[in-house]
Amino acid sequence: MIAIAIHGGAGTLPRQELTREVWATYRAGLEEALNAGYAVLERGASSLDAIERSVRILEDDPLWNAGRGAVFTEDGRNELDAAIMQGATLQAGAVAGLSHVRNPVSLARLVMERSPHVLLAGVGAEDFAIEQGVELTPRSWFHTERRWDQWLRARTGDQRAGQNVNYFGTVGAVAVDSHGNVAAATSTGGMTGKRWGRIGDSPLIGAGTYAANAGCAVSATGHGEYLIRATVAREVSALMEYRGLSVAAAAREVVQVRLKGLGGEGGLIAVDRAGNLALEFNSEGMFRAARAANGRHLVACYAEEEA
Amino acid sequence: MIAIAIHGGAGTLPRQELTREVWATYRAGLEEALNAGYAVLERGASSLDAIERSVRILEDDPLWNAGRGAVFTEDGRNELDAAIMQGATLQAGAVAGLSHVRNPVSLARLVMERSPHVLLAGVGAEDFAIEQGVELTPRSWFHTERRWDQWLRARTGDQRAGQNVNYFGTVGAVAVDSHGNVAAATSTGGMTGKRWGRIGDSPLIGAGTYAANAGCAVSATGHGEYLIRATVAREVSALMEYRGLSVAAAAREVVQVRLKGLGGEGGLIAVDRAGNLALEFNSEGMFRAARAANGRHLVACYAEEEA
Repeated sequence: MIAIAIHGGAGTLPRQELTREVWATYRAGLEEALNAGYAVLERGASSLDAIERSVRILEDDPLWNAGRGAVFTEDGRNELDAAIMQGATLQAGAVAGLSHVRNPVSLARLVMERSPHVLLAGVGAEDFAIEQGVELTPRSWFHTERRWDQWLRARTGDQRAGQNVNYFGTVGAVAVDSHGNVAAATSTGGMTGKRWGRIGDSPLIGAGTYAANAGCAVSATGHGEYLIRATVAREVSALMEYRGLSVAAAAREVVQVRLKGLGGEGGLIAVDRAGNLALEFNSEGMFRAARAANGRHLVACYAEEEA
Repeated sequence: MIAIAIHGGAGTLPRQELTREVWATYRAGLEEALNAGYAVLERGASSLDAIERSVRILEDDPLWNAGRGAVFTEDGRNELDAAIMQGATLQAGAVAGLSHVRNPVSLARLVMERSPHVLLAGVGAEDFAIEQGVELTPRSWFHTERRWDQWLRARTGDQRAGQNVNYFGTVGAVAVDSHGNVAAATSTGGMTGKRWGRIGDSPLIGAGTYAANAGCAVSATGHGEYLIRATVAREVSALMEYRGLSVAAAAREVVQVRLKGLGGEGGLIAVDRAGNLALEFNSEGMFRAARAANGRHLVACYAEEEA
């Protein structure tokens, strides 16, 4: 059974700011990315194609902290990370610290398919992009007024600017195709005001992104350092592979017990070969959407909207 | 029971080059690092202190592809990576792409203990080092004639220069202290001729480095891309935690079945809370040494020397 899930980060907006109008905008953004990926699955293409399609749309949408809407680092730049992995072969590709690549998820896929490596970083990763004929984007593409304002507020000590809205605003997608192959992808602009060349969980295989047909595909979001220490994405699949848990039980155990036990806030989306979906978070909310061939169709932010 | 193991990479030299005299040099280097770490454990200090001590000695020894003896990137530079993790708290620190830090393992420890982050990369990581008062080293410190010759040979197409000798020449240490806390550290100069800002498994938590008291501490070495895809270090501990395997059985399963199944060459060292050690590799050899309070004392390169 084909199925796809996407997320727009476990950070969300403070409830009072998510008015009906604002939510309508976010909801439309999620729907567009979800349905585009689902259409790829419906025409029989691979889960890899589907998640790349969805994540590219989220990257191009300035609403999300990935691609165009990336937040600013401490010194006022945008640094983008992404990863992709396919469950049939355990092949993976990832990129970190990009400044001129419009769709980091697609460069991650090129790393997987056309290089002998898994993770490329910084200027070297952009050298690879150029060699692959990827058209670079002027950095101004990533300069959105909203994120710049957040950066300015963060510099003046408004904690909320750096935490609630941006800290967790990663995007991701997981899917299973008609061949029963799962895949996962994650893309992020990191933390507002991040410094020291910090790399979070998103581009790290096993932390923010993981996929194995033997278990499931996972894209995580949240306070990255905790997700790395808990090897969150690999863990959900490992609990299925080694303990026989369902994807829902494994996701719950990892997010509500282990991650919470370390003090980490976040969430994840996961899907197994049979099309079973899990969308789990221990934060106030997580922008998320899911659609499966059994008719399940969900777009939500907080917990109570899931019906 | 206190115990420590170290490795100097799963690449080793071709057998015909490892003459009795050459092996005596490598053996002495391993013994020095092993015994220094063991002495730290003997006086009751933490496994974290012990592995940092051993790895610093390996980093300062030009024999190994880490710290001083790091290989050269394609454009003739040295880029150093390291990670450290402690099993009691799952805290971790890592650095990637350093050019001016003599002991990357110690900067990884500072990331763990004095920053809110896990992984810092490149110039930003060196900014952090400077803020922490770490004295930077001119890049000439890392310029050894042997590695420079290897780089020159690699550029002229001598494959052996890039593969047998350097590709796998990471160093690492794992230990358990008298309190039953495990810790692991790994440090590397990467691959000779690496490019595109490639980051390997060493600085990635769960790939090249992992430690959990519930399972074991692991430092891996080998063809990094496969180690990342197989989340090798986390996997050994996970098989202990979820399947009840011994550290030896878990290490064997991961290195001889999973890693080999993906086509990956490499090895790892691991230790559990009880002081049980595993030193497993599927390559021709792995420079390794181990010492435990039960009298076990080993220094070896190829398989048959293990008695």
